[in-house]
Amino acid sequence: MNKVRIGCAGLGRLGVRHAANIAGKVRGAELAALCDPDAAKLEKTAGMLAVKHRFTSFEDFIACPEVDAVALASPSALHTEQIATSLDAGKHVFCEKPLGITAAQCKKAEKAVMAHPDLVFMLGFMRRFDESYKYARQKVLAGDIGKIVLFRSYSQDPEKFIDGAIAYAPHSGGLFLDMAVHDIDLARWFTGSEPVSAYAIGGCYAHNEFAEHNDGDNAACLLKFKDGCMAFLFAGRTAPHGYNVETEIVGTKGTLRIASVPQKNLVEVLDSHGVRRECSENFLERFAAAYINEVQEFVDCIIEERKPEVTVQDGTRVSEIAYACKSAFESGELMRF
Amino acid sequence: MNKVRIGCAGLGRLGVRHAANIAGKVRGAELAALCDPDAAKLEKTAGMLAVKHRFTSFEDFIACPEVDAVALASPSALHTEQIATSLDAGKHVFCEKPLGITAAQCKKAEKAVMAHPDLVFMLGFMRRFDESYKYARQKVLAGDIGKIVLFRSYSQDPEKFIDGAIAYAPHSGGLFLDMAVHDIDLARWFTGSEPVSAYAIGGCYAHNEFAEHNDGDNAACLLKFKDGCMAFLFAGRTAPHGYNVETEIVGTKGTLRIASVPQKNLVEVLDSHGVRRECSENFLERFAAAYINEVQEFVDCIIEERKPEVTVQDGTRVSEIAYACKSAFESGELMRF
Amino acid sequence: MNKVRIGCAGLGRLGVRHAANIAGKVRGAELAALCDPDAAKLEKTAGMLAVKHRFTSFEDFIACPEVDAVALASPSALHTEQIATSLDAGKHVFCEKPLGITAAQCKKAEKAVMAHPDLVFMLGFMRRFDESYKYARQKVLAGDIGKIVLFRSYSQDPEKFIDGAIAYAPHSGGLFLDMAVHDIDLARWFTGSEPVSAYAIGGCYAHNEFAEHNDGDNAACLLKFKDGCMAFLFAGRTAPHGYNVETEIVGTKGTLRIASVPQKNLVEVLDSHGVRRECSENFLERFAAAYINEVQEFVDCIIEERKPEVTVQDGTRVSEIAYACKSAFESGELMRF
Amino acid sequence: MNKVRIGCAGLGRLGVRHAANIAGKVRGAELAALCDPDAAKLEKTAGMLAVKHRFTSFEDFIACPEVDAVALASPSALHTEQIATSLDAGKHVFCEKPLGITAAQCKKAEKAVMAHPDLVFMLGFMRRFDESYKYARQKVLAGDIGKIVLFRSYSQDPEKFIDGAIAYAPHSGGLFLDMAVHDIDLARWFTGSEPVSAYAIGGCYAHNEFAEHNDGDNAACLLKFKDGCMAFLFAGRTAPHGYNVETEIVGTKGTLRIASVPQKNLVEVLDSHGVRRECSENFLERFAAAYINEVQEFVDCIIEERKPEVTVQDGTRVSEIAYACKSAFESGELMRF
Repeated sequence: MNKVRIGCAGLGRLGVRHAANIAGKVRGAELAALCDPDAAKLEKTAGMLAVKHRFTSFEDFIACPEVDAVALASPSALHTEQIATSLDAGKHVFCEKPLGITAAQCKKAEKAVMAHPDLVFMLGFMRRFDESYKYARQKVLAGDIGKIVLFRSYSQDPEKFIDGAIAYAPHSGGLFLDMAVHDIDLARWFTGSEPVSAYAIGGCYAHNEFAEHNDGDNAACLLKFKDGCMAFLFAGRTAPHGYNVETEIVGTKGTLRIASVPQKNLVEVLDSHGVRRECSENFLERFAAAYINEVQEFVDCIIEERKPEVTVQDGTRVSEIAYACKSAFESGELMRF
Repeated sequence: MNKVRIGCAGLGRLGVRHAANIAGKVRGAELAALCDPDAAKLEKTAGMLAVKHRFTSFEDFIACPEVDAVALASPSALHTEQIATSLDAGKHVFCEKPLGITAAQCKKAEKAVMAHPDLVFMLGFMRRFDESYKYARQKVLAGDIGKIVLFRSYSQDPEKFIDGAIAYAPHSGGLFLDMAVHDIDLARWFTGSEPVSAYAIGGCYAHNEFAEHNDGDNAACLLKFKDGCMAFLFAGRTAPHGYNVETEIVGTKGTLRIASVPQKNLVEVLDSHGVRRECSENFLERFAAAYINEVQEFVDCIIEERKPEVTVQDGTRVSEIAYACKSAFESGELMRF
Repeated sequence: MNKVRIGCAGLGRLGVRHAANIAGKVRGAELAALCDPDAAKLEKTAGMLAVKHRFTSFEDFIACPEVDAVALASPSALHTEQIATSLDAGKHVFCEKPLGITAAQCKKAEKAVMAHPDLVFMLGFMRRFDESYKYARQKVLAGDIGKIVLFRSYSQDPEKFIDGAIAYAPHSGGLFLDMAVHDIDLARWFTGSEPVSAYAIGGCYAHNEFAEHNDGDNAACLLKFKDGCMAFLFAGRTAPHGYNVETEIVGTKGTLRIASVPQKNLVEVLDSHGVRRECSENFLERFAAAYINEVQEFVDCIIEERKPEVTVQDGTRVSEIAYACKSAFESGELMRF
Repeated sequence: MNKVRIGCAGLGRLGVRHAANIAGKVRGAELAALCDPDAAKLEKTAGMLAVKHRFTSFEDFIACPEVDAVALASPSALHTEQIATSLDAGKHVFCEKPLGITAAQCKKAEKAVMAHPDLVFMLGFMRRFDESYKYARQKVLAGDIGKIVLFRSYSQDPEKFIDGAIAYAPHSGGLFLDMAVHDIDLARWFTGSEPVSAYAIGGCYAHNEFAEHNDGDNAACLLKFKDGCMAFLFAGRTAPHGYNVETEIVGTKGTLRIASVPQKNLVEVLDSHGVRRECSENFLERFAAAYINEVQEFVDCIIEERKPEVTVQDGTRVSEIAYACKSAFESGELMRF
């Protein structure tokens, strides 16, 4: 195979981005089909990207013979079922995070993936495909910063998207499952270790609407890892300056910081506000290249008949940890793994 | 009184710095006497600073009639006793942190201070007198960043001083009492609130010598405050880049970072290592101006017959919190206040 | 036409990059042919990129009927002749800077372009396609910085490539024609004005080899523009920290700086060298996205039957200005336009 | 002598600052007298600083036997006469820049200083006493950046003080004499070389009021030095972001930048404007410590009976260069020294 025909299911903002990337920016890929229950959205996107095969039903979509692989960006609750169905239909699967919204779901997805060792399955932990995170990890693996002491990672969404966040609150799974999963994935990826305890706090500092879903608008947790490494994770929805995803890795011989200034680009402005950098607006801007790179890796894996570094087990493990943090947050108790 | 005659007890690095500041850089102050059990050190410093009254005995020192006030930079274990003796002798007292090394000691110091309402007592929480911290706090008080969500503060000593830290380990009280007390003071000062729970972890990542004193070379704690604010504190002794004291205050309307680059000065170097800022070497360099400002405030309080903002109760409270963090660190359990 | 078949001539580092971009990263483009007198290089590149049509002769290349457009990255001295030949053969032309190496050549190229109003001609001023430069220009056009007072732009190559620069010195045309042309293009693009005077100085600060070609390893010029704007340009070949292309635009209401820290990515390193950003290594790394964007624009212009913003006249004008700077540098006299 | 009694003449903003520093922050100094023709201003300052001797007449002031040394911050046109009178009266002299406002004046001042080899004379080039500039120069002298290629220095005053600048325009001497003199001093101090040519341009970009004094609101010059070093100086009065004094020294082995972000302090703000540093407001804020350090050096020189590094000849030379730049600016011609 030297051209992978991909079908995209789920045409939210990220789904549309994946579709557009596959249509024009991923080498060896072809956007073959689109699927979304919203017919108007489907027609609009399919028209814009010149896609022939269009489905409002997932069953029909997955039966399309001109699709070799699927990219799933549907609502989180549907992920594991769609993964199983797609694999059973013989399609390679790229799925957005989170893997599932319950531990049981994740285990079911694991089973489905294990049952199809010939198919490529990949989870969308796109930060691993960001040039800066990749560069930092190479330095860590090369021993440049010695032993890892502290891993600190922030995921802050801009306050200006708060209405959307409030509307989505009943389905988001909360700050840890919705946002901190990326930081949890990074923590495991950088340290190569697993957490043994977690303490989590936080609350509603600006928007009480989250409380009714046992969630907050900002939360943090402190994790201890098996190898002794500490991890501090912070997730929030009220950043006034923009989309702030930053990570710090303190080692015994050096410290790395990734995006400690969440800069939009290389322009610095000197005006009545001082000397300033404008910030990334959202994940689509900040991780534009990473979203291309990850699907490129998915496609390359299919063509080169190899498996991606991210496994379905990573997805399960990250979800389990996020659940433990959520429980710690809700109960006020220390969680031990 | 328009000239305050000050005697300095304890001529370690910080004691000598206080003495030199009093001798030449504090308006309205006069360096009147020095006290240190090490006669050679005493003579050397007294000669350099042209001080007449020199004592190897604290009792003789405190009896000197030409001393109006004392600055104590003696070993931590001696603080509370010397505070009481000095106040009883009618001297105003400036004392280095920590107030005491046990809760009982702190309570005793409180009693002594309460018994002398006419005398000025001040603790050396110098960070409150740093221009950048003051500026940041004004912004917080002015409401510029809204409600405080997260207070994050680091105190990292340079790896190059590790030998001294190891030698001092039996007496330091550990990372929380020796270093994080400043961050605890700042957390209370910025939030105006008190912690209700603490979880602490850490260990020996590079130097196992600290383990025998139930201490680590790096540790962190996550605190929840009464008003909901979260605080993450990190203290370490292995920073390869220099003396890194930085603080971040995340609010609902803005975030402030103080010294997130612990820059030595305004020089930026572009060479084969990239574009870089060299870092502060130690507390004496980073807080040079703050050490002057705090003693200036002490002297101004005496002259203007008013009391400093920092109280003895602040000292007790900070110590209690540091102890709780230490207990959490040692036991692995969540502490509740 | 919805697929533009492009042939690339000249397989130096930049030529190979253009070819690879066209092969895999430019929407609507197809890499149809390659041309280079060096047969080994040709075969290697063609094999790597799976290109069928391979030519060591430019005449044969330009006669290939399966080529709609050409991208020329051949030696500068050949540009204008190849432009004319290509246009006469009915091919759209994308040509690397500089347009030509003499004013007469440039005029000839202008004539050729004018003679083919139906064909797209575009010069490779890639900086105009860099996201940061584009963002800055939008701000300038929007009036955000008021009237432009000073335009300052640096083009510094890393010292580590000095051997190549010395070897290329006889053919480079010197610092102004080889490097500062990009800054001159930017100055005209940002100000919308033309220079009226130029004073240039510089010399060999580290490598006397450039002197025999009436060139230096570092040079600068100060230009006055018709609208009063000042421009300071600096070009050098001895930057120890990497590839430093930075621009500052001082306006009456604000200042913009583009890449004043020539950072490689978003990683910040804190180690024994201080707090540092590693730098871009070379133009291929710094302008990786711009090189794709500019060819994308070329292809889009062909497909959408419109003309690019950069004109052949821009190429002539920039060359004339670079020549004037070179004359000023060589003569020590003030040049007036 | 172990206490130097200093009289201050000229109680503008900088004069008052010098007086206050001498009164409270310079070791070995005593503020003994004040002089200003404005009696109200004199009384107010003298009262605030508790100074006994107060004079509205310079002649009376200079005759005061309880004054060992004078600090002159009077209008520039009076400098050289007051220098001579003071030296003739046996007083050590610290004088604000510029030395004089004509070459003839400077020469006269030189003569007066030469006639009193026993007295200390020092010019107020305070930037040499700023910690960052001192640190940078040590690196240059240590050979850390190799041979100097380019010296770039900016002096930009905030737009918010433009009314004062316009009012002062008839007496300021213009951008080069009023502002760029500091940069010229630094260029000579860092390179140890002298300019051989100068080209200067600029104009009124926002405020035409300066034109009637043959001045502009922004100007720049490009200088060539004997040793080949290039210098680019930029002076302006319309900076929207604050007081921007920055310097870059490009060498063959490294580049140093001093205050390329003219930060007020170590606080970074993340809010709706992005990630930003607020800027220094004015020279009194930016150079607060340097103003103390320079007078400390003056006093130390008197006490230790040695001469300062800055000489009267430096004052003359800097003025001559500034005049040449002014001529270049006014004539549009290249100046050669």
